[in-house]
Amino acid sequence: MNYQYLLGLSIILFSTKILGLLTKKANMPQVVGALLAGLILGPACLGVIHTTNFFNQISEIGVIILMFMAGLETDTQELKRSGRAAFIIALLGVIIPLAGGFAVAALCHVGSDALPASLTLQYIFIGVILTATSVSISVETLKEMGKVSTKAGTAILGAALIDDILGIIALTVITSMADSSTNLVFVLLKIAGFFVFAIVAALLYKQLMQFFVRLSPDHNRRYILMSFAFCLFMAFCAEELFGVADITGAYVAGLVSSFNKKRERIYYDFDTVSYLLVAPVFFASIGLKVELASMSSSILIFTLVLTLTAILTKVLGCGLGAKMCKYTSRESIQIGVGMISRGEVALIVANKGEALGLITSELYAPIVIMVVVTTIVTPIFLKLAFKSPKKRAAAL
Amino acid sequence: MNYQYLLGLSIILFSTKILGLLTKKANMPQVVGALLAGLILGPACLGVIHTTNFFNQISEIGVIILMFMAGLETDTQELKRSGRAAFIIALLGVIIPLAGGFAVAALCHVGSDALPASLTLQYIFIGVILTATSVSISVETLKEMGKVSTKAGTAILGAALIDDILGIIALTVITSMADSSTNLVFVLLKIAGFFVFAIVAALLYKQLMQFFVRLSPDHNRRYILMSFAFCLFMAFCAEELFGVADITGAYVAGLVSSFNKKRERIYYDFDTVSYLLVAPVFFASIGLKVELASMSSSILIFTLVLTLTAILTKVLGCGLGAKMCKYTSRESIQIGVGMISRGEVALIVANKGEALGLITSELYAPIVIMVVVTTIVTPIFLKLAFKSPKKRAAAL
Repeated sequence: MNYQYLLGLSIILFSTKILGLLTKKANMPQVVGALLAGLILGPACLGVIHTTNFFNQISEIGVIILMFMAGLETDTQELKRSGRAAFIIALLGVIIPLAGGFAVAALCHVGSDALPASLTLQYIFIGVILTATSVSISVETLKEMGKVSTKAGTAILGAALIDDILGIIALTVITSMADSSTNLVFVLLKIAGFFVFAIVAALLYKQLMQFFVRLSPDHNRRYILMSFAFCLFMAFCAEELFGVADITGAYVAGLVSSFNKKRERIYYDFDTVSYLLVAPVFFASIGLKVELASMSSSILIFTLVLTLTAILTKVLGCGLGAKMCKYTSRESIQIGVGMISRGEVALIVANKGEALGLITSELYAPIVIMVVVTTIVTPIFLKLAFKSPKKRAAAL
Repeated sequence: MNYQYLLGLSIILFSTKILGLLTKKANMPQVVGALLAGLILGPACLGVIHTTNFFNQISEIGVIILMFMAGLETDTQELKRSGRAAFIIALLGVIIPLAGGFAVAALCHVGSDALPASLTLQYIFIGVILTATSVSISVETLKEMGKVSTKAGTAILGAALIDDILGIIALTVITSMADSSTNLVFVLLKIAGFFVFAIVAALLYKQLMQFFVRLSPDHNRRYILMSFAFCLFMAFCAEELFGVADITGAYVAGLVSSFNKKRERIYYDFDTVSYLLVAPVFFASIGLKVELASMSSSILIFTLVLTLTAILTKVLGCGLGAKMCKYTSRESIQIGVGMISRGEVALIVANKGEALGLITSELYAPIVIMVVVTTIVTPIFLKLAFKSPKKRAAAL
């Protein structure tokens, strides 16, 4: 057995906390410090820690727990009210980045004739990568600020949920064009199937919990443990059986558990596991993925333009969608900003594209940098967007 | 990325809890149920879950956290008082199983002429495997019964700490006889070095914590996170730099943290991570390791005799040691019983022996079964040994 991971874990916990406290002192969310810790420790800078399977798996559990907690905190009444709005926000938040990514890729000529897919398809694929939103960072920041259940917070969560589905559809359309083994109708049926499955699973889970409550009403731990087992099960089923992202499954499990009377105790114990073990690993692991290999100047320019496009198109698309749904300008900006972060979803999409011959491996570095930058700026912008107007004026 | 581990984790959490509740109903500790869950899910029975690197690493963190919590709970005054006794208990608890293991191996002729080591050395090695005590199961059981800081509980922890060191010496002696690359004096110096290192690290850690307290006295989480980072760091250093077991390092880190004012909060949050994620994986993973491959009848008999010898020699050796140190007969039995469990230490030793050509791979199954049986009977016997005499009489 190799014990190196114990040292790695120790360093990650220590440095994410130290840098988190420093960024907090600088009036930025602690998450930024944790992301920077990964960037500094990883191959981009010091190179003392590398991503391993263990860190990847722990960090996946970290995202799952974060999304479960987001579900637990979601005000379902508000989500129902904002359902139509969330759909419009998500839709515009997919279409505009898709167009933007395509335009940037075409302008920078980043395609390769050596790939099996046509250049147009390669350019569209860059657009697809820009559609993916990862709200876990926003959720963490909103949590830190106590804003998860605000109107804008709920819209962000709802829109991200729908964005995830639209992103999967976009990915499926393009992969089905590049690869004849996937069928669009079948994929759409599977997505619908997941929601039917989720409702059935939720009902069965509720029965099981009631049985436990009758058995012994005073023991909290067994419910919390069962909630975690249920959360992991839903995450697995979403990903492996229905082709939906695992975090969508975890979010749904959280929503289901939010009706539980023990909700607050469940939240508290999940939060402990999160802050003490899995969340620091997740935040650090994003920075750890960046490798600044020898990049040509044209790739550097592409990286810059891609990153700016990623930020602007999401804020524009989602903000416009929100504005159309009669949110205030302030809320529309908050919503747009909350959707900037691309996170692991974009990386998964990029991975898939490389495997299918839709992008060259040379484009992997720009995409990772875009993900890291959008992830780092999201909490900073989000904090600014939620600052009370008076305070912001004073800060300027 | 493969998401199978999410399902595996979900099944482990669910089944260890369900079986734990069943064994609790049957008046046995919940740990037994968790061990049985692993046995049932693993290749020995259903074969639905297999040990993976991920489960091994999570389960290692599980042991580390359990040992840290044991250190946190240790009554250091009592440990100082019982230091000499713990040494005698550990010494007899090593010598008698060593002799017993040798005798059984010689009687059953389990050696192989094909191995590079002499038959005598191979027989001695079986004895060395029997010396290793793993107190994590006892600690968990004592915790469940609220008996960690009793006189017997403290003696068990102290003796296990020393047993660990004596076991390492025994292992080193025999491996240095089989392999010329290890040097006994050097190993002893490293063990001494670890304790010097631990004292220095503890002092530095205390300074760091005081600095944090001055910085912001009201935030608990940063201390708890730092304690965890320190615990992992000590576990790593013990194992990799000084050749002492990682759990010894974790235990020492727990002892150091037990002087912290936030001790109870630290304990509470570690306990949450333990019960909700890492401990179920640890307990299940022991059962998962059992593979009942085609075993010959002579190997079956050897398994039976080895297991009985493992149980009897530990109870006899440690009980005798305790009796010599003027513990009551009742306490001596409690101490002897608390040391029965072999756990992961014996498996690590066996692994090492196989790599050095000291045992054949055929002997691996009997050793795993011995480990599982000693681990399952320990909590049962321990609960009986701690039952008040009146209740025990009524139960008979």
